[in-house]
Amino acid sequence: MEALYFFDLAGTFVFAISGTLSGIRKRFDFFGASMIGFVTAVGGGTVRDLLLGFNPVGWMQNVLYLYIILGGIVCAILFKRQVMKLSKALFLFDTVGIGVFTVLGLEKSLLAGVEPVYAIIMGMCSSVVGGVIRDTLCNEIPLIFRKEIYATVCLLGGLLYFLLLGLGVSGPVASVSTILSIIISRLLIIRFQLSFPTLSIDKEEENK
Amino acid sequence: MEALYFFDLAGTFVFAISGTLSGIRKRFDFFGASMIGFVTAVGGGTVRDLLLGFNPVGWMQNVLYLYIILGGIVCAILFKRQVMKLSKALFLFDTVGIGVFTVLGLEKSLLAGVEPVYAIIMGMCSSVVGGVIRDTLCNEIPLIFRKEIYATVCLLGGLLYFLLLGLGVSGPVASVSTILSIIISRLLIIRFQLSFPTLSIDKEEENK
Amino acid sequence: MEALYFFDLAGTFVFAISGTLSGIRKRFDFFGASMIGFVTAVGGGTVRDLLLGFNPVGWMQNVLYLYIILGGIVCAILFKRQVMKLSKALFLFDTVGIGVFTVLGLEKSLLAGVEPVYAIIMGMCSSVVGGVIRDTLCNEIPLIFRKEIYATVCLLGGLLYFLLLGLGVSGPVASVSTILSIIISRLLIIRFQLSFPTLSIDKEEENK
Repeated sequence: MEALYFFDLAGTFVFAISGTLSGIRKRFDFFGASMIGFVTAVGGGTVRDLLLGFNPVGWMQNVLYLYIILGGIVCAILFKRQVMKLSKALFLFDTVGIGVFTVLGLEKSLLAGVEPVYAIIMGMCSSVVGGVIRDTLCNEIPLIFRKEIYATVCLLGGLLYFLLLGLGVSGPVASVSTILSIIISRLLIIRFQLSFPTLSIDKEEENK
Repeated sequence: MEALYFFDLAGTFVFAISGTLSGIRKRFDFFGASMIGFVTAVGGGTVRDLLLGFNPVGWMQNVLYLYIILGGIVCAILFKRQVMKLSKALFLFDTVGIGVFTVLGLEKSLLAGVEPVYAIIMGMCSSVVGGVIRDTLCNEIPLIFRKEIYATVCLLGGLLYFLLLGLGVSGPVASVSTILSIIISRLLIIRFQLSFPTLSIDKEEENK
Repeated sequence: MEALYFFDLAGTFVFAISGTLSGIRKRFDFFGASMIGFVTAVGGGTVRDLLLGFNPVGWMQNVLYLYIILGGIVCAILFKRQVMKLSKALFLFDTVGIGVFTVLGLEKSLLAGVEPVYAIIMGMCSSVVGGVIRDTLCNEIPLIFRKEIYATVCLLGGLLYFLLLGLGVSGPVASVSTILSIIISRLLIIRFQLSFPTLSIDKEEENK
């Protein structure tokens, strides 16, 4: 699956860029912004690998990821205005990254021998946790807890993957179908501005 | 120790409920609140297992925990008002959970072959760290750093456990005695509203 | 390298003190302040060991570190005013600690068999991540993301280490040279109040 590898790198690159931009928005210095870019890009996969017991963690196995991340960080710092104008292209690659990370995380979990239900959770973890760490280090409430709903899309994508396998679909076809369904769902969600209602204890409080 | 297993599940259930309620109070959407419920329930044991080198981590070994957590999350979201009215029962099970988690964490650490002093720390970690992660993700200062004092009770409980073993008491008796002493201590602490004084650099500052 | 071991202990002691003082400044109770002191002292090495796959993590291998940390915590709580008056001595040992932690982290990474570029990152991680966790738990933006620039000094120190090894310098000499260069750089940086410019998206925004 060479295409998958390419999209994994592209997703990593875009995650590094978006993380670095978050750091710049918080007025970090260039080390701080780079650190946020780095943890955003590797955070999800790192937590997954720690929980599953892979060591050293994934990004220490292939130095290409490090250079891709470094490239994303440098781009974001040097060309921040131009990069922000490309927000649509960035968003597209970010979405592709989310889909690819989910499926790769899911497949890596199966390699570790865990049951499908854990693989689904680890797939979601792979694409979501980097952003959670980014927001926590920036001293903000993680975006996906209130606004973004792609984490749920990743979980449903994982479910679809095992459904397809159960129906006798081959591994690579299930992977690609899952990735495409995650990508299309997220694009539709953003297009129609869907989000889950926030919860609250008290209805009246909600209207304040 | 089937009773211990039952109380471990009950504690996990209550931790998931209390975590989810924290997320609801912060007006997260249902994914965000569920995520907080989940990490509150598994956080302490996960960090313990990572530090000791158990992998995959505990909650991936027995799918029953996952269903129990899911049940707690669904209860908290669907019946939040009713659940909050049961606050006394919740508090009781939360306290039982703290005691059980401490002793189970302590025993798991001994299995890993670490010295008693680390087992005591890991026992406390098992019951405390879930709440620390919950509060950090909710962008708040962890409750146990300022108000709750049960972490210290867990440490003292761990000390008692090894004291009893040293006195020749059998393992199961030491376990149950430790759990009961933690439960009773916490109930007394809450009953008499005990807390440690907060520290500060400057006495005058304290009176502001 | 017995001197290295001594300075590692001294650095751990000072990290525990500075962490505890941070907790006191946030008006934590004595458990909360102790917990911050503890994670500040062990956080960097713990994350490094988890990422590299060492288990149990370093501070569980030698109980002396635990007593040193406990000593630092007790000192900070009992003698907080006196300790703060020693801020210059503390700063000096903190700086020595940063240098020593970097080189020890780097050497431990090489033992795990990772490539030099990861060892450099892990060296920096060893001396920096404890402070990042401290600030995150105190609900603040990590200091090193905006003000302190020693993380970059640690990275450059790691680079120097491998440069020296590449030039045929012996291991111990490379270690000591790297530590000294990190210490001297940080002292010069503080002496001349150097810092990186903070980044921002918009120049005008910067002047608000």
